[in-house]
Amino acid sequence: MQFAQRLDAIETSAIRELFKLLGKPGIISFAGGFPDPALFDVDGIREASQAVLANSPGPVLQYGATEGYGPLRAGISAFMAAKGGAGNAANAQVAPEGLIVTTGSQQALDLIGKTLISPGDTVIVEAPTFLATIQCFRLYGAHIIGAPIDADGVDVDRLEQLIEQHKPKLVYLIPTFGNPSGATLSLARRLRILEIAARTGTVVVEDDPYGELYFDQPPPPSLLALSPQVPGSRDWLAHCGSFSKILSPGLRVGWLIAPPELLARATMCKQFSDAHTSNLSQAICAHYLTLNRLDATLDAVRPVYAARARVMADSLRREMGDAIEFNQPQGGLFFWARLTGAGGRNADAAAFAQQAIERLVAFVPGNPFFAHDPDTASLRLSFATVGEAKSVEGVARLGQALLA
Amino acid sequence: MQFAQRLDAIETSAIRELFKLLGKPGIISFAGGFPDPALFDVDGIREASQAVLANSPGPVLQYGATEGYGPLRAGISAFMAAKGGAGNAANAQVAPEGLIVTTGSQQALDLIGKTLISPGDTVIVEAPTFLATIQCFRLYGAHIIGAPIDADGVDVDRLEQLIEQHKPKLVYLIPTFGNPSGATLSLARRLRILEIAARTGTVVVEDDPYGELYFDQPPPPSLLALSPQVPGSRDWLAHCGSFSKILSPGLRVGWLIAPPELLARATMCKQFSDAHTSNLSQAICAHYLTLNRLDATLDAVRPVYAARARVMADSLRREMGDAIEFNQPQGGLFFWARLTGAGGRNADAAAFAQQAIERLVAFVPGNPFFAHDPDTASLRLSFATVGEAKSVEGVARLGQALLA
Repeated sequence: MQFAQRLDAIETSAIRELFKLLGKPGIISFAGGFPDPALFDVDGIREASQAVLANSPGPVLQYGATEGYGPLRAGISAFMAAKGGAGNAANAQVAPEGLIVTTGSQQALDLIGKTLISPGDTVIVEAPTFLATIQCFRLYGAHIIGAPIDADGVDVDRLEQLIEQHKPKLVYLIPTFGNPSGATLSLARRLRILEIAARTGTVVVEDDPYGELYFDQPPPPSLLALSPQVPGSRDWLAHCGSFSKILSPGLRVGWLIAPPELLARATMCKQFSDAHTSNLSQAICAHYLTLNRLDATLDAVRPVYAARARVMADSLRREMGDAIEFNQPQGGLFFWARLTGAGGRNADAAAFAQQAIERLVAFVPGNPFFAHDPDTASLRLSFATVGEAKSVEGVARLGQALLA
Repeated sequence: MQFAQRLDAIETSAIRELFKLLGKPGIISFAGGFPDPALFDVDGIREASQAVLANSPGPVLQYGATEGYGPLRAGISAFMAAKGGAGNAANAQVAPEGLIVTTGSQQALDLIGKTLISPGDTVIVEAPTFLATIQCFRLYGAHIIGAPIDADGVDVDRLEQLIEQHKPKLVYLIPTFGNPSGATLSLARRLRILEIAARTGTVVVEDDPYGELYFDQPPPPSLLALSPQVPGSRDWLAHCGSFSKILSPGLRVGWLIAPPELLARATMCKQFSDAHTSNLSQAICAHYLTLNRLDATLDAVRPVYAARARVMADSLRREMGDAIEFNQPQGGLFFWARLTGAGGRNADAAAFAQQAIERLVAFVPGNPFFAHDPDTASLRLSFATVGEAKSVEGVARLGQALLA
């Protein structure tokens, strides 16, 4: 059987092989990119589910609009407009008709690829970035170029040069608590990116699944929330949101906000991708938003993740010393770290991952997060699903594996 | 903003415009392709939903495997193996690992397109066929050729010629109660298609959403169920199934059965399309199958649709006489009809659709169901969601519109 040429662009993922090992008994895994299911608001989801199915659920069980379930589009609009409380700079004004519901934000990325990318088009991403975005866009024939990042997110000077040089079809960014970088783009850089997008007529895709998962204080407002300050920028801005990290990934409900023409074409592509997203999942999310439980849920979740991140930082310093370096994230799920090779220690993260698995601890080496020229010393550690005592033990095993 | 070239292959659908009119008060619609929500087993879905969320629903609310929720893959395997009762010729043996769960069978089609079709590849479909398949495959660059059908399904001699002439990447068929044709492929033709697939090394995609919705007696076994009789044919056969027409479309749960290499690559494509299908929807379907309610539900649904189809046939003959011709379907949701132009009447179905809308009755003209060379006199009427009295009234209005 002969498969489509586009598959040639995809590498069978080393990560899939790694994940097969995660079922090993006794393994401590920092490899996932998952929220902790113990923190899900199961009671709220149960209440919403029962309410949705209680009376005349016919419309929820029937085919629905490709654009999304009406009450959910309205609910997401209200959610975006109330971020951080009324009048907060994080508020974003989006009419219900200005967004479509997607089957997780992964589908929003897929629809952007399907709608915008022709084979050979250039796309600029952060180096490193979400690896499923790299693969997703490559399936549509994208030539992907990475722009370097530091602790304040993407290097905007370099990004501007790359945009002028390559005239990309789009720029994809995770500005807040990036995956895998953990980095957050500064306010000044956000405003400059909006200015560059408007001036050069470049589509910027803001992927924002982690913004609500801050530790001590909220991150800068999203590009979407800032766009009214930069005339013309909204015409070039797409924004992907998701309930996966704040409510439940298993429901597969995300959303795409985009300029009207782009949104209309993405909707057409969605019609032929999956017709629409599960109405039951959508109705549950819509009803959940009316229960006014989300703020309290997030207030409970944030300090747990914050504490786990502190424990991981302390453990890494204590157990691995100058053999590893990292920036401490201010939210999200991830540490992005580098092996320094200090003291002649291993600085190859892929080899280190193998040594770690032998000591029953897992993480993801950084290579697949780069579209090209990987930093082979880099690695991603997620603290989100590992309790504090286990985290201490896991990092201790990492230290033994590296320093043994 | 410049969109991807692949969108040039898609026409903005006249049907979307038509569907906007369906909200008009008093309209009787034969235009939909939907099952009747009044026939859904709401109690069963409610019971399944409560059971799934009752105890430790963490795994259901968390990210899941791209391949699908384990208990559902096992449940679908058992469902396929027990079609029509144990030992029935309709039974199909598929290991749980031999299928993946998709976000409706629309996504199964999308994954087939993504996995197999390179720009310029030829795909053969029935003329007429499901219009979303035409559009879906065109987005991957397919050149689509229609093979003629009659009341016994696709003309296999002509199909064989087209395969030899064009060496297509795949052949897409809805062998049972086709959409829009209502036609059912005969047993002899099914076996010949399997033989041709094996001999020529041609992928055949069997889309089977309607097979359970027979009226009086079961249709011939699916190509999948017949494939063990034709050595080598299973290696070239993909099969799309769905809960949409037998349980609920709103849950968006379908499945794809395919040879291992194709299934593995489709799974990889799904990973970057939507990561996985709603776990809640999947778990509800899995639990529902264990409730042993599906057989009784289908036993209740079949005579309702059968009666509606009889009423529509009688009404069409009575109200429109020799101005219309059609084959009476033996299951499914659709009549496929042709305006004969007898007595100098209108034989242009698109113009007739406009006249009908003025009399508050809707159907879909046949043109968009053809990849090329449409039969402009053809039209599709769905009887599924219109009660008998309303159906009589709707067809009477059609008669007035045509014969006025």
